[in-house]
Amino acid sequence: MSVAYLNGRYLPLDQAHVSVLDRGFLFADGIYEVAAVIDGHLVDRASHLARLERSAREIGITLPIPLAEVEAVQQELIARNGLGEGLVYLQLTRGADATREFLPSPGIVPTLVMFVQAKPFLDVPAVRTGIAVATVPDIRWKRRDIKSVMLLAQAMAKQAAREAGAQEAWMVEDGFVTEGASSTAFIVTGEGIVTRPYSQAVLAGCTGAALTALAEESGLRVIRRPFTVDEALAASEAFITSASTLCQSVVRIDGRPIGDGTPGPVAMRMRALYIDFARKSAARD
Amino acid sequence: MSVAYLNGRYLPLDQAHVSVLDRGFLFADGIYEVAAVIDGHLVDRASHLARLERSAREIGITLPIPLAEVEAVQQELIARNGLGEGLVYLQLTRGADATREFLPSPGIVPTLVMFVQAKPFLDVPAVRTGIAVATVPDIRWKRRDIKSVMLLAQAMAKQAAREAGAQEAWMVEDGFVTEGASSTAFIVTGEGIVTRPYSQAVLAGCTGAALTALAEESGLRVIRRPFTVDEALAASEAFITSASTLCQSVVRIDGRPIGDGTPGPVAMRMRALYIDFARKSAARD
Repeated sequence: MSVAYLNGRYLPLDQAHVSVLDRGFLFADGIYEVAAVIDGHLVDRASHLARLERSAREIGITLPIPLAEVEAVQQELIARNGLGEGLVYLQLTRGADATREFLPSPGIVPTLVMFVQAKPFLDVPAVRTGIAVATVPDIRWKRRDIKSVMLLAQAMAKQAAREAGAQEAWMVEDGFVTEGASSTAFIVTGEGIVTRPYSQAVLAGCTGAALTALAEESGLRVIRRPFTVDEALAASEAFITSASTLCQSVVRIDGRPIGDGTPGPVAMRMRALYIDFARKSAARD
Repeated sequence: MSVAYLNGRYLPLDQAHVSVLDRGFLFADGIYEVAAVIDGHLVDRASHLARLERSAREIGITLPIPLAEVEAVQQELIARNGLGEGLVYLQLTRGADATREFLPSPGIVPTLVMFVQAKPFLDVPAVRTGIAVATVPDIRWKRRDIKSVMLLAQAMAKQAAREAGAQEAWMVEDGFVTEGASSTAFIVTGEGIVTRPYSQAVLAGCTGAALTALAEESGLRVIRRPFTVDEALAASEAFITSASTLCQSVVRIDGRPIGDGTPGPVAMRMRALYIDFARKSAARD
């Protein structure tokens, strides 16, 4: 059993429990972060910590420990669990009150939990085969820029994707793709790499942000504009980014092949660039 | 400390804990119900149980015990806690997996928790004074007909209402009031009692449904159509219904008085009719 962190204590994950009165459980009143670990080191950690701080601020939860200490706990969990390749999950909620009321008590103490998951993502079959995506209506709330635990719509989208034989869902609003259920969506067209601009309609993906910077540094053009499902179907390539997949080619959307139906050169190049960046950023620990 | 129920066991509420891997905590993958207790009896219990069953079905969670047993637990909690006036809260989540993945394991076992809260609602000052409401944009997801624990938007709305000196928030979408953050919204116009029709845009309120039936039985006209904030401001009366308030007059919206700024006769009559119904429905236990 892996070692988790809960409110200042290290304990076995299967003993990490929260009160049923925790507002994370009762009201989805909480936020989270998922950071990748490669070669035993956190990838792009400053970016995830900055987003954590922003999400917490947006819903008015004060981090119970400073960001530097959050990172120290992440490092400690990697060490204690001997994690080489995988994820560090972090969740911050407003905490537990003595009763269930929509308005929290003034003195409520936030809940902070972190745990790791060993998970290979460097050498996985999906890299070679690419993945299939199914489109679903985007039925989420309007503050998707906050990485909240309000994830039921995303879980339903993932389930719909699975039932359609796909590994990820792309959510569609007003005809435009917003993002993946747990990833950022990209297509490659004659213009360059196209991805949706930041707004309250999407989460600002850490992996996607690093990757677009790498693309531009290497001379590729990145265009931030919404794109439609039809544009995606007509694209030469499509791909997703996230902390848990890094960068993976999308070779089918709603059952129709993208390009020649195999992982394309731009996505493969972006993945290689990102892994190189990840290894270098990890080595700077 | 009150006695709670968790997955087949009765235990002190402050010992009722769930795993941090519970999908209710990680993904807001769960639903809930709140039923009123008056004179030690559940009010309108069949209606709440039917909605519980519907919400569970809509997101594909199987109740771990039959509805009749759910009700037996509710009654047992009322008895063990000597609850005269208050609420029975129930939450059902998809359960805890061994790891955090968007897609649940096939064998996952749902989490069912219930607890009570003593809370007076028959003789409270708000009945005599009426309440103030603040309008806020409705930023929730699109499946509000499911009574899910995806409640962060409602909690934010309640907070905004408090900051505006109001006790409830009315959420507004495309110019029309959808509903209260934790109540159904009604206005009284020359036409009769106006409230929004059922759709995925609102929760079908149990208390509101019983109350509109009572209104119609007593010869009042109920019109199911969306209404605007301007219509509400021009209404002769406004009121809310919910299990935890039953029926309360709204005397101010965004700081402007409704009617003469005091609880109106229709709302007071509806409240009296509902309490009479509640007592009778409770006595049928």
